[in-house]
Amino acid sequence: MKILRRRTGKVFLVGAGPGDPELLTVKAVRCLSCADVVIHDRLVNPGVLNLIPASAEKIPVGKKGGHYGFPQEKINKLMVSRSLEGNQVIRLKGGDPFLFGRGAEEMLCLARHKIPFEIVPGLSSVFAVPSFAGIPMTHRNMSSSVLVLSGHLASSSDHVVPWDLAAKADTVVFLMPLGNLKQIISQLVLHGRPLDTLAAVLGSGTLEQQRKVVGTLSSIVSQTEKSSMKSPALLVAGQVVQFHALLDGCSKKITAVKSELTSKEKEPA
Amino acid sequence: MKILRRRTGKVFLVGAGPGDPELLTVKAVRCLSCADVVIHDRLVNPGVLNLIPASAEKIPVGKKGGHYGFPQEKINKLMVSRSLEGNQVIRLKGGDPFLFGRGAEEMLCLARHKIPFEIVPGLSSVFAVPSFAGIPMTHRNMSSSVLVLSGHLASSSDHVVPWDLAAKADTVVFLMPLGNLKQIISQLVLHGRPLDTLAAVLGSGTLEQQRKVVGTLSSIVSQTEKSSMKSPALLVAGQVVQFHALLDGCSKKITAVKSELTSKEKEPA
Repeated sequence: MKILRRRTGKVFLVGAGPGDPELLTVKAVRCLSCADVVIHDRLVNPGVLNLIPASAEKIPVGKKGGHYGFPQEKINKLMVSRSLEGNQVIRLKGGDPFLFGRGAEEMLCLARHKIPFEIVPGLSSVFAVPSFAGIPMTHRNMSSSVLVLSGHLASSSDHVVPWDLAAKADTVVFLMPLGNLKQIISQLVLHGRPLDTLAAVLGSGTLEQQRKVVGTLSSIVSQTEKSSMKSPALLVAGQVVQFHALLDGCSKKITAVKSELTSKEKEPA
Repeated sequence: MKILRRRTGKVFLVGAGPGDPELLTVKAVRCLSCADVVIHDRLVNPGVLNLIPASAEKIPVGKKGGHYGFPQEKINKLMVSRSLEGNQVIRLKGGDPFLFGRGAEEMLCLARHKIPFEIVPGLSSVFAVPSFAGIPMTHRNMSSSVLVLSGHLASSSDHVVPWDLAAKADTVVFLMPLGNLKQIISQLVLHGRPLDTLAAVLGSGTLEQQRKVVGTLSSIVSQTEKSSMKSPALLVAGQVVQFHALLDGCSKKITAVKSELTSKEKEPA
């Protein structure tokens, strides 16, 4: 005997933001609070996962230690089967679902199976991590073009990184650069980016344990190697990196600000 | 007699996101709830401004109808004076504070005056608007480079847009393209982007009244002219635009989803 099937559920492709649970959108929080099933990237911050109701099924998927521990095909199948059972399924992806996150593949799969879905954009670490660290993407007469690339692809044999563009854009950001940092920097220089171009590697961005290594294209590889920087990280190169020191001078401790705001909230209105 | 000065306040450069108040971050909502003074871009959505406490001073600044109605120097002076009076000042900027928003200039000013500040990243419409409309920025074997430019600068005499990069990046996004749309498209084609490249102009993105015009580089100017598209808008060009139809097929009405979630929230636990 077949179990009676409820009406088809819905899948929400939701961006979990760059790390800090407070950088989730209000909509993402609301989606999570109504979830029956949450299929989440392993990289999603534990503080974000704490927002999932105890009643919901939590399924960790995706990369583990840089490797695909969970094939995309299996993720797709899970989304389809759980939603066909009538569940509200949240596919929770780091950053924004549609920037180097295979979100388009997941959307294609849902459309093929005629499963209703919605996209809930999230803060991509591409802008949020430098922004939080005081590094603007643009600045008058300094940077008015921003190129976003993936560091993972720098070592891919069937993919050609547009190094000529990366060398010319005012600001260039590489997501997940650590595995190929030496190669990325060499290629930027080979394609004409001056050795004294400022560069920053930002790790665990927007979190209290965030790490920042700032140097130039000639020094950043060795500096990063000497640091205990771990993935997830990103690389920003360009003149805008010089701004990072302003924030350091103004607020040494992010935690101090948090408690400041919290205590203010507790005051009687 | 001088009025006694309280200790210096603090300025939060806060991203108001792309439009939908639900796409504010949790942190931005918390910042607004504690504000003494909110200096906000005129473009910020009224739904977002409704979150400002009645007790706070609201000061609208910035562009009005595409023109700078309020000089940057005056905005800087306001931030400085209000924070020196001991206020918690929120400088609320559309999208992310650090992407084509003159946020870096404001940060420089605060640093010069030794005023404590913090950056609260917001969802830039660059990624959020296409994402919400079902257009991914990247997709395997289709797009792995994203270039972000400003449409305003396309007509600036003292600024050279890197058209060669814009013609080559897999996906290119122009913020605020409407004033120079014809010129932008011509330049993309002149620099080698094929006439049949897919292009979308998205207006009032993430809001219920969002508008979408989809075509190719050869058709998008006349299509946009025929539509009643108004600023704020953005232009996306590249193969990824083809995905937009998937979302249309799945969920015709964004509002239906909202009520669905809301009714679910109201159910007893």
